[in-house]
Amino acid sequence: MPAYEDIRIGDSASFTKTVSESDVYTFAGVTGDLNPAHIDEEYAKGTLFKGRIAHGVLGAGFISAVLGTKLPGPGTIYLSQELKFKAPVRFGETVTATCKVIEKVDAKRRLTLETKVVKHDGTTVIEGMAVVMLPEKGQ
Amino acid sequence: MPAYEDIRIGDSASFTKTVSESDVYTFAGVTGDLNPAHIDEEYAKGTLFKGRIAHGVLGAGFISAVLGTKLPGPGTIYLSQELKFKAPVRFGETVTATCKVIEKVDAKRRLTLETKVVKHDGTTVIEGMAVVMLPEKGQ
Amino acid sequence: MPAYEDIRIGDSASFTKTVSESDVYTFAGVTGDLNPAHIDEEYAKGTLFKGRIAHGVLGAGFISAVLGTKLPGPGTIYLSQELKFKAPVRFGETVTATCKVIEKVDAKRRLTLETKVVKHDGTTVIEGMAVVMLPEKGQ
Amino acid sequence: MPAYEDIRIGDSASFTKTVSESDVYTFAGVTGDLNPAHIDEEYAKGTLFKGRIAHGVLGAGFISAVLGTKLPGPGTIYLSQELKFKAPVRFGETVTATCKVIEKVDAKRRLTLETKVVKHDGTTVIEGMAVVMLPEKGQ
Repeated sequence: MPAYEDIRIGDSASFTKTVSESDVYTFAGVTGDLNPAHIDEEYAKGTLFKGRIAHGVLGAGFISAVLGTKLPGPGTIYLSQELKFKAPVRFGETVTATCKVIEKVDAKRRLTLETKVVKHDGTTVIEGMAVVMLPEKGQ
Repeated sequence: MPAYEDIRIGDSASFTKTVSESDVYTFAGVTGDLNPAHIDEEYAKGTLFKGRIAHGVLGAGFISAVLGTKLPGPGTIYLSQELKFKAPVRFGETVTATCKVIEKVDAKRRLTLETKVVKHDGTTVIEGMAVVMLPEKGQ
Repeated sequence: MPAYEDIRIGDSASFTKTVSESDVYTFAGVTGDLNPAHIDEEYAKGTLFKGRIAHGVLGAGFISAVLGTKLPGPGTIYLSQELKFKAPVRFGETVTATCKVIEKVDAKRRLTLETKVVKHDGTTVIEGMAVVMLPEKGQ
Repeated sequence: MPAYEDIRIGDSASFTKTVSESDVYTFAGVTGDLNPAHIDEEYAKGTLFKGRIAHGVLGAGFISAVLGTKLPGPGTIYLSQELKFKAPVRFGETVTATCKVIEKVDAKRRLTLETKVVKHDGTTVIEGMAVVMLPEKGQ
């Protein structure tokens, strides 16, 4: 991971995935979230969204992927996350999670990042903020 | 799902799972969060946590399981979630996600729920709040 | 789980899932049932069913889901299951497993349940019976 | 697959697997059977079985593996299965599913097979019978 000192306000990183039916089904199985909105097409046809959708928290997983593997990367201590779910993701849609540093608190080695998930067509899926801490070097 | 009108402040529901290595590995694969803290034991031995830990957002998945399958259950529209990560979960630890209604905003059919994930030994893993909306009957 | 005493003849519960390709492939991997009818589209095109189908026993898994999580629910001791496979399930079809109490044997705390899996279009997939036992309270 | 005509009463085939925690967790996710007996160690400690156990129907999956891949093998039409669950399987135990032809009904090209799942220590896990049909050659 980059040293805390080398991270600049405005730095950003992203992760993109086309959300598959198998992603949603596997996520349902691991988390226990068997809400029929995710796994029952007949039920889902009758909802506001007219078909099965991904779990909102799957998008949070993509944010976690950016924080944990890219910016700041391995070593990050994840302190908090706010998520506003703005639009659902249908199977086959491609989304990009982007994290951008907007604040540094040097005394605590903390970063605040703007965290967004956006569809390929520009629709915002998730808006929010993450706070992470970086360990001292060698820790 | 219970009708909005039938939900009372103080109602709560829970989901419990022993977090397995396979949960964490599967979650890593689906979300792309391949942070070595989760999947590299040799790396993880050298961290603050002295071994591999589950993704914080997996706990958020258990919260989503409660909201989407139990309280309020199917039909819930998930508007927002705040998560404070207080302690890591090691493989083999059993955690319980609990959601408790703390506010109702009738005009918008919105509920605020306190959302916690706690280990079997009482350690708090996640604290936070969720806001959800319930559709009108028949929607 | 409901107490044995509170379960009535005629009580029923269901679980519905749209059966995905990933369900069938994952089920194949875990059980070892790599029959080409399930995982080889070119082979399957030449069969009576004209394409890949789900494992019959996957439907039995949905019956187990109802028994183990809903009726009677956690604590159930599963004694036996009869399954008649009446029709195959294709990928993307939605099925509902329903279990209905048809007999109680009080001396042994046993229930017999009619167990069915039916497609959304009304086609019967599985017919059969389950026998379960409920432990004494506190056991 | 062997031709119907070449199968003899007494023929048998087997499939063996050490049942892992990940098998059980994946099976739970695909089937929706999140019974805490399978995924909550703290709950399971308080049951008759003193810890998490595999789903009984997972054993039925191993029987299906034998029928669908070995005897009779690909092309088999699975008509019915009876299962008596005699003992639970704990994580890490090795089980063998064996299917043995005990009857042939030539006019209908049907076979009855004795289907057993037995642990490495000799404990019977499942007893039962399967009935399968074989298509005419070229079908």
